[in-house]
Amino acid sequence: MSDAPTKVGVLGARGRMGSQACKAIDAADGLELVAGVDIHDSLAGLTGAHAEVVVDFTRPDVVMDNLKWCIGHGVSAVVGTSGFTDERVEELREMVGDRDDVTVLIVPNFSIGAVLMMRFAAQAAPYFESAEVIELHHPEKVDAPSGTAQRTAELIAGARADAGCGAMPDATASDPSGARGGAVGGVPVHSVRARGLVAHQEVLLGALGETLTIRHDSLDRESFMPGVVAGVRAVSGAERTLTGVVVGLEHVLGF
Amino acid sequence: MSDAPTKVGVLGARGRMGSQACKAIDAADGLELVAGVDIHDSLAGLTGAHAEVVVDFTRPDVVMDNLKWCIGHGVSAVVGTSGFTDERVEELREMVGDRDDVTVLIVPNFSIGAVLMMRFAAQAAPYFESAEVIELHHPEKVDAPSGTAQRTAELIAGARADAGCGAMPDATASDPSGARGGAVGGVPVHSVRARGLVAHQEVLLGALGETLTIRHDSLDRESFMPGVVAGVRAVSGAERTLTGVVVGLEHVLGF
Amino acid sequence: MSDAPTKVGVLGARGRMGSQACKAIDAADGLELVAGVDIHDSLAGLTGAHAEVVVDFTRPDVVMDNLKWCIGHGVSAVVGTSGFTDERVEELREMVGDRDDVTVLIVPNFSIGAVLMMRFAAQAAPYFESAEVIELHHPEKVDAPSGTAQRTAELIAGARADAGCGAMPDATASDPSGARGGAVGGVPVHSVRARGLVAHQEVLLGALGETLTIRHDSLDRESFMPGVVAGVRAVSGAERTLTGVVVGLEHVLGF
Amino acid sequence: MSDAPTKVGVLGARGRMGSQACKAIDAADGLELVAGVDIHDSLAGLTGAHAEVVVDFTRPDVVMDNLKWCIGHGVSAVVGTSGFTDERVEELREMVGDRDDVTVLIVPNFSIGAVLMMRFAAQAAPYFESAEVIELHHPEKVDAPSGTAQRTAELIAGARADAGCGAMPDATASDPSGARGGAVGGVPVHSVRARGLVAHQEVLLGALGETLTIRHDSLDRESFMPGVVAGVRAVSGAERTLTGVVVGLEHVLGF
Repeated sequence: MSDAPTKVGVLGARGRMGSQACKAIDAADGLELVAGVDIHDSLAGLTGAHAEVVVDFTRPDVVMDNLKWCIGHGVSAVVGTSGFTDERVEELREMVGDRDDVTVLIVPNFSIGAVLMMRFAAQAAPYFESAEVIELHHPEKVDAPSGTAQRTAELIAGARADAGCGAMPDATASDPSGARGGAVGGVPVHSVRARGLVAHQEVLLGALGETLTIRHDSLDRESFMPGVVAGVRAVSGAERTLTGVVVGLEHVLGF
Repeated sequence: MSDAPTKVGVLGARGRMGSQACKAIDAADGLELVAGVDIHDSLAGLTGAHAEVVVDFTRPDVVMDNLKWCIGHGVSAVVGTSGFTDERVEELREMVGDRDDVTVLIVPNFSIGAVLMMRFAAQAAPYFESAEVIELHHPEKVDAPSGTAQRTAELIAGARADAGCGAMPDATASDPSGARGGAVGGVPVHSVRARGLVAHQEVLLGALGETLTIRHDSLDRESFMPGVVAGVRAVSGAERTLTGVVVGLEHVLGF
Repeated sequence: MSDAPTKVGVLGARGRMGSQACKAIDAADGLELVAGVDIHDSLAGLTGAHAEVVVDFTRPDVVMDNLKWCIGHGVSAVVGTSGFTDERVEELREMVGDRDDVTVLIVPNFSIGAVLMMRFAAQAAPYFESAEVIELHHPEKVDAPSGTAQRTAELIAGARADAGCGAMPDATASDPSGARGGAVGGVPVHSVRARGLVAHQEVLLGALGETLTIRHDSLDRESFMPGVVAGVRAVSGAERTLTGVVVGLEHVLGF
Repeated sequence: MSDAPTKVGVLGARGRMGSQACKAIDAADGLELVAGVDIHDSLAGLTGAHAEVVVDFTRPDVVMDNLKWCIGHGVSAVVGTSGFTDERVEELREMVGDRDDVTVLIVPNFSIGAVLMMRFAAQAAPYFESAEVIELHHPEKVDAPSGTAQRTAELIAGARADAGCGAMPDATASDPSGARGGAVGGVPVHSVRARGLVAHQEVLLGALGETLTIRHDSLDRESFMPGVVAGVRAVSGAERTLTGVVVGLEHVLGF
């Protein structure tokens, strides 16, 4: 019966992201939370609960075992755990093979706003001479630039290369303190760290006489939950649109 | 010979936009400015100069005669003159009929940045609960909201309706001075007027815990020229991509 | 002994603001939290604890009784409870009379950033032809414009009047939907409401060829705590700078 | 007679700044442009025209001679020419001595908005844990950071030091590309260069749960003219407020 809710289990259910995911799935139309499994618990409960989809917010050292189990049991997965190298993705593709009853969706960034920002930045970049990325985060962040800024700059650089754009104009001859910031693929990236900030990013695109700015402000982890819910829907049930192993929320958004 | 430059004539060549268009075409690879015709001059010079494309920055009361002449002579046109109602566009479609040797491209806004802003706003809108438009202009502007803000709000409202979005959340119970601004199709629009501003617009999209802001700053009329050049290329020569009567620079950008 | 910490009691200690105030005072150098009194409890505990200062985050219907008790017992007060009309302030002045051992500090907005924004906006306003206020809040807010925006506009209007500034330039002739927003003392005010926002305000000042923008983003109630701590220090102990009845955190900041 | 307009001469009258200054003085109430002297012309014309004030927009190699002449003839000066080292200022002080009939006002930045931005940034800095400067300019600019950003960071660093502020929080452990930018006196400075920009600067101040942002956008050289006119009034006529040698427009603004 097509109207029965999709049964969802959450792995890492007591973690920061997992516990929010439990709440979000519970509240979503057409989804039913049937199992919350902590990181050290057995996955057997998922079978008893007839979970059709699993959301994994665990750890890099256990996630591959979890996914092996899921694929083996015909359970699709939405994965927010980090650490997915090209090798790991390839390994998953081999596990899934040509089965069309399971989907594994790996999502580096669940924020729909961040995904749209990256998408729009790449789409617009070929029409502008200049592009720079400014990311602003709380001062506890240990790495600069942020992963999202790095990825955004790569996408901009790729789009510019594909369109045959030349180097960006920049007459800087003197910059003793390094104020021009870092660069990823030729795209300048600036990292700001200040108390009171959470996670923000601005992409500035400039052409003769005009600029286009795309800015994303993320103030709360709850902003990731619509992406989790959309991911679950895309890998299961009546609204399923994805098969195989898929990387990136952009595929859920239908771009 | 495919390498010969496309011959371009400009109508309204001494006006603010027309004179800039002359310069831009002169400077563009693969385009050759062969005639600049003032608003009161005869179009006969275009024939002698073998113009293949005309750029029209004249006036609503003469533009239809210009376009009739162009279509009759097999000359494509890129039109920045305002005043194109649905009736006028229909009239042009009848003039062109099924001829595939001429294209008429009507462009309400030549700024690539503004077109991208509108495009992105409409594309993103279904993923957010809230959307508002803030446009900021110099204080000599007589109408509020701006035409671009009006159009942006219509596009957002349309995209939300198509996606089945409900009303935006808004608990405002008391607003004695009208601070919540205007609304177009249910999308709040705010108009700021201040000395020192030129033409700016911000689209704010909000969801749980995050906002996405798309902002366009237009500081100089020269920002319209890349759009003019791209339009000329899209209606003629080796890079021609458009036929018939087309409205909007977005078709040139391949969206 | 000047090095003994100042003893502080908090009234309304279990409320949202009061409980944060308890934590902030506990963590502040030179302050000691000696009593947390809930809104329905007796104030007698303050005497036993030898409180020198009270922080009041209670309710308009009980705050005047609390302050009467404080003044009677020689205890200074920092008050974040709302509802202080001119009449109430006058009543407090009569209670305090010419006593110099107690200070009552009434604070409508404990955010140092918001106070600075208002201060700077008023200070800069006479140098600019145009000034507009844009405030952006979460969609649960019931009133527009916000109290801070109202106050900011009043301060700008006052500063402009004192400096003999004329009317702001505005050629708007057509605004059928009210997109130009509200106005307070001739200063346009725009209220944006969107999911994902918390509490934000932007003051835009414009002159020939330049704009100055002052923006305050408030993301968390904890932003009020430095103002609470600074207020406590200003009314007691070795760093005491204020006497009598004082309204506004700006006096604490030494403006 | 106090109502007679102040007679003003402009040196470097045919340069970019000088020619705008001529127009601005001509248009200002209470000021009369009596002489425009080109950079190679004799100053004798100033005497015949009875100039009471001179505005100097010439070059570092001639400005000291100009000022010597002015001081000798009892003519006050407003100087926008660059290159004023501490030595040059000292030399001017010796020339003026204790004469109270002439004022020499040296102005590194005539933009009132920029001066206010610097002033506010320094005033606010002690109340925030974090402060960073982001300056954004057209891509023809050869030096990074801009002089204004450098000066702003110095003022912030000085204000923080005076207030006894500790180091800003920053947990950055990995920054392989230098994305954290430059630093001036411990204040991070980021320089953005993009086509379509003119001259912009943002100061971001952050504390627990809140940020205060002060932004200046300069779009046109005409933005300097109100500062020139205010400078002229401050050194001469009925509104004279300054004597001796004074550096910085902030003294004109009465800070």
